[in-house]
Amino acid sequence: MDLKFIYKNHKEYEGKEVSFIARIRSHRQGKNINFLVMNDGTTINDIQVVYTSDLKNINSISEARVSAILEVKGIIALTPGKQQEFEIKATNIELLDQAVENYPLQKKEHSPEFLREIAHLRARTKTFQSIFRIRSAAAFAIHKFFNENDFIYVHTPIITENDAEGAGESFIVTNRADDKYEEDFFAKKATLTVSGQLNAEAYAQAFKKVYTFGPTFRAENSNTSRHAAEFWMIEPEVAFADLNDNIELIESMVKYVINYLFEHNKEELLFCEQNLEKGLIDKLQNVKDSNFVINDYREVIEILKEAVKNGHVFEDSRIEFGMDLGTEHERYICEVVNNCPTFVKNYPKEIKAFYMKQNDDQKTVAAVDLLVPGIGELVGGSQREDDYDKLISRCLEMGIKQEDLWWYNDLRKFGYYKSAGFGLGFERLIMYVTGATNIRDVLPFPRTPRNLLF
Amino acid sequence: MDLKFIYKNHKEYEGKEVSFIARIRSHRQGKNINFLVMNDGTTINDIQVVYTSDLKNINSISEARVSAILEVKGIIALTPGKQQEFEIKATNIELLDQAVENYPLQKKEHSPEFLREIAHLRARTKTFQSIFRIRSAAAFAIHKFFNENDFIYVHTPIITENDAEGAGESFIVTNRADDKYEEDFFAKKATLTVSGQLNAEAYAQAFKKVYTFGPTFRAENSNTSRHAAEFWMIEPEVAFADLNDNIELIESMVKYVINYLFEHNKEELLFCEQNLEKGLIDKLQNVKDSNFVINDYREVIEILKEAVKNGHVFEDSRIEFGMDLGTEHERYICEVVNNCPTFVKNYPKEIKAFYMKQNDDQKTVAAVDLLVPGIGELVGGSQREDDYDKLISRCLEMGIKQEDLWWYNDLRKFGYYKSAGFGLGFERLIMYVTGATNIRDVLPFPRTPRNLLF
Repeated sequence: MDLKFIYKNHKEYEGKEVSFIARIRSHRQGKNINFLVMNDGTTINDIQVVYTSDLKNINSISEARVSAILEVKGIIALTPGKQQEFEIKATNIELLDQAVENYPLQKKEHSPEFLREIAHLRARTKTFQSIFRIRSAAAFAIHKFFNENDFIYVHTPIITENDAEGAGESFIVTNRADDKYEEDFFAKKATLTVSGQLNAEAYAQAFKKVYTFGPTFRAENSNTSRHAAEFWMIEPEVAFADLNDNIELIESMVKYVINYLFEHNKEELLFCEQNLEKGLIDKLQNVKDSNFVINDYREVIEILKEAVKNGHVFEDSRIEFGMDLGTEHERYICEVVNNCPTFVKNYPKEIKAFYMKQNDDQKTVAAVDLLVPGIGELVGGSQREDDYDKLISRCLEMGIKQEDLWWYNDLRKFGYYKSAGFGLGFERLIMYVTGATNIRDVLPFPRTPRNLLF
Repeated sequence: MDLKFIYKNHKEYEGKEVSFIARIRSHRQGKNINFLVMNDGTTINDIQVVYTSDLKNINSISEARVSAILEVKGIIALTPGKQQEFEIKATNIELLDQAVENYPLQKKEHSPEFLREIAHLRARTKTFQSIFRIRSAAAFAIHKFFNENDFIYVHTPIITENDAEGAGESFIVTNRADDKYEEDFFAKKATLTVSGQLNAEAYAQAFKKVYTFGPTFRAENSNTSRHAAEFWMIEPEVAFADLNDNIELIESMVKYVINYLFEHNKEELLFCEQNLEKGLIDKLQNVKDSNFVINDYREVIEILKEAVKNGHVFEDSRIEFGMDLGTEHERYICEVVNNCPTFVKNYPKEIKAFYMKQNDDQKTVAAVDLLVPGIGELVGGSQREDDYDKLISRCLEMGIKQEDLWWYNDLRKFGYYKSAGFGLGFERLIMYVTGATNIRDVLPFPRTPRNLLF
């Protein structure tokens, strides 16, 4: 039996025998009575097993160490008033596999830094059990949301010749020890994708509604708590859709995921609230229940100017049209001003990507970011430029090579009427819904500069 | 409105006005009456629009080319006895975006080779609409299957320092134009993963049941219809599970996916049957309904020897214990002998990976392959070696570097009682369920030697 099943049905099973295989989390031996705390990974709730020296193979069991695997048969006894609601009175225990003495995860507090060094083991702790259960559930919720809304899931390529935003910082994929890429596997320079958007756009023209959900890469040498070299992105794209449709889609997707977690992962969220972020549940409840505010970028600039005038001090207080918003500005808008998730739209074209639709004012593009309290930007999206000539001239202005992008630009020649989409960094979402403050703690095996273990 | 909606509800909407945006697939103009065949990507079924010269903006509409985008308002008229069940009598049409004259996908037959050269457009054809709808649905079915069975979805890393099976043929991931990897981004040589299994095993020890579903890579210079440099794999791993549990899991997953497609994608399957593989539906029905046969490898060898003795000619007819089964042998077993999907288990250890559990006979390992009629091997799996010393000595025998695998081998020190799992190549599954014969036609943007477009 799975411990999840036993945990859920322990009342009906009172006085009955159950059997299960699980790992020892702690082992305490008394004079007459001994306690095992066990877990099999199917629930974050541990189960207490009580045994006495009457046990058939007491000698081997009494030597079982933390992390050893036991098969337990026993009777469920309710223990009202105690810390746990029930325990198992063992009738038979078999030691299936012993653990060595120096198992690194003994029952004590470990630092996040130490746990990152044992990423092959840390998922056994309650914190990482909670985080990675939530990660798995959120991934499923995203697939379910798009499936229910008739989106087609597209596996856009990982190895690519284009770098999407012209941002550079791509990893090279090669078979060679030099840069003679014309003699390489693909007979040209190949890189790891930074975004599936351009390919998704081609598929949106075929299926109307598509999304990607896959790994993306940045060879950015920044050792911060928010950057990883490898992370997962969700990128939907909808043909015949404009910026307002996009905003509606973002809001409904974010709320859907949080709803799903409330329905399926309340225990894990509560554990995260108690151990990672006070007020987590209220924060998420607030997002679920609020109507997100929509601000124009120009409005935001005015609000920030006013704030500075009234004495608010930002690290960067030179507020002017054309500036990129920093996290401090984003958080001020959604936390102090709106106290609510906030869309900011119509950014200056100079600070946004070449493919975003130019607005009639010639100065802004139909871009939108979703800012959320506590974190700032969570989602970035836009309506795409649908005019072939404008797209090409924007490429030229921004110095973007076109020879790799002919097929993308060409989409505009073959009937292209509005297309909009967004990108959601999956790890940023998981940090947001778990309260984890370091991206290394929401990736099973994180990849960062000079760090490639496991 | 989506055309999917109109198609589904056309009877209730008879005589009523509908409106939609869609792309022209063909445009035929008669003396008094004109026909548009249109599709918006939400269904593989095209919709016929009829218009007369009474139309307000008849001049622009009559010039609308194949692939142009139109907004159509019109009345649904049932057309019993005709090829299509209903048509739209247009009351108003707007040309939203014209297409150029030389749109490559005119209404005629195109070769698969030509269509691969326009992978950014080919998803608009009915064949690729069907294939990629099925691909999307199958991916969702797999996530749903594992979710319903309490598996945790783990994003195992793409960039890695280990090559899992020691097979070589990994792509290098670098920031440099030379091989001074100690000065590289990760301060060591990094490669693209060939399998997520080893990392999944670590997580199975934490969650009992886990699976990965992500891209994997092979830098194999083979230009066949079954090899791609980048493809997606599904790799579940279950702790406390043996080879028989594994076999049950494989059978139930394969049947679940086919059932899901029968329930949700019957139209696309029928299109594939008519255009890609005669008898496809019966083939899949047979898989769905049959109890898969289980043969021991030794049995298989005896059966093949007997077949040769009785005059059956294989390309490789030197049948003996120790040989790897070729596709011809695999297909003979599941097509001629069993006429049914067939598990073959307990292969000679020499032809299998280092991590597979050695059987007591010292000669075989607890490996299992699923062979299916028409294709041969679809799934490969095994119970994993749980004995630390045996694992290490097998590594040494097979010349596998251990310095990168210490953490994997160490799992056996910390309580490790049985673990089993398998790998399913997602593209092979999609080829099987669609009848597509070239892997390049089931990948949105395939990557093969000297081919890196889009």
